[in-house]
Amino acid sequence: MQLLEQRIRATGKVCPGDVLKVNDFLNHQIDVPFVKRLGEEFRRLYKDNYISKILTIEASGIGIACLTAEQFNCPVLFAKKAMTTNMSDDVFSAPIYSYTHQQPGTIVVNREFLKPTDRVLIIDDFLANGSALSALIQLCHEAKAEVVGCGVVIEKAYQPGGKKIRDMGIRVESLARIKAMSVENGIEFCD
Amino acid sequence: MQLLEQRIRATGKVCPGDVLKVNDFLNHQIDVPFVKRLGEEFRRLYKDNYISKILTIEASGIGIACLTAEQFNCPVLFAKKAMTTNMSDDVFSAPIYSYTHQQPGTIVVNREFLKPTDRVLIIDDFLANGSALSALIQLCHEAKAEVVGCGVVIEKAYQPGGKKIRDMGIRVESLARIKAMSVENGIEFCD
Repeated sequence: MQLLEQRIRATGKVCPGDVLKVNDFLNHQIDVPFVKRLGEEFRRLYKDNYISKILTIEASGIGIACLTAEQFNCPVLFAKKAMTTNMSDDVFSAPIYSYTHQQPGTIVVNREFLKPTDRVLIIDDFLANGSALSALIQLCHEAKAEVVGCGVVIEKAYQPGGKKIRDMGIRVESLARIKAMSVENGIEFCD
Repeated sequence: MQLLEQRIRATGKVCPGDVLKVNDFLNHQIDVPFVKRLGEEFRRLYKDNYISKILTIEASGIGIACLTAEQFNCPVLFAKKAMTTNMSDDVFSAPIYSYTHQQPGTIVVNREFLKPTDRVLIIDDFLANGSALSALIQLCHEAKAEVVGCGVVIEKAYQPGGKKIRDMGIRVESLARIKAMSVENGIEFCD
């Protein structure tokens, strides 16, 4: 999506440690009119797929998920990061590895909000190693809900997550795909 | 707001420890078309106040903030819960006490996103003791940004937060105000 690539080039900051900060429109400040256009693009991509629910993970997925859900007129469910792996019976849970905090964790959703009748679009801001998407997919599998596909704002295509998820047979749509990135040379997008 | 009171009566769950769970539309699952109507109500209340930015706190404030910001055509800034009180120079920070986790913490925003020219509407899901709103107001004061007012979805009016903030001379609009609440007797709203 050209509009998004332009924005990333203009205001994204490549930082040491393979970090891309897009704090001015997505991860800290949310440029709502702009992110709404990303939601419209997800709508265009998945408009024939009868989405009943959008699943994401707290915290920075929530904004893009809500502005996308508006396009589908459906609810958002955001998985919570659990403090403990000692879960109650009323949740589905899945392991996740946080690269930000360099530690393993667990995400959960209440069973009452994810059903076998749901057709789920999973939305997240970044796709790199695929840990978050894998965990969200696992929650859907636990619930026997159908994963229609994933919608990602920025994919680091040089990392293994995208291939991993697509190799599971799951559709992944990324609005910007980064081929290479470095502090020295900036950002190169996939064609 | 009658529509909201009806929804809280219908699907809210009063739990021991003075907890009101509204997980089916606000705090876990987000009923986007419904929450959008709450955003429209905040717009009606603050439409003449030239709001330039909506400030909230991760995670459950983000959805309502985004759907409200759409009405004002302005960005959202969400304060982050910091892991440490050892802050860098490029953030404004304020102390906060988490009643959920029963421990003190710190919230931060990057200085570049909160300016003296900003006219800020602070949005949050709940107002009880006022710890979160106070911290968000303090961030604005640090930044010399103007706090136009606060918009809260559910105020526990029997707790001291609302009075505390209003006594600071700050306008607080709550869409539902709870007068009393208990597992035995359910919820009573203010007139």
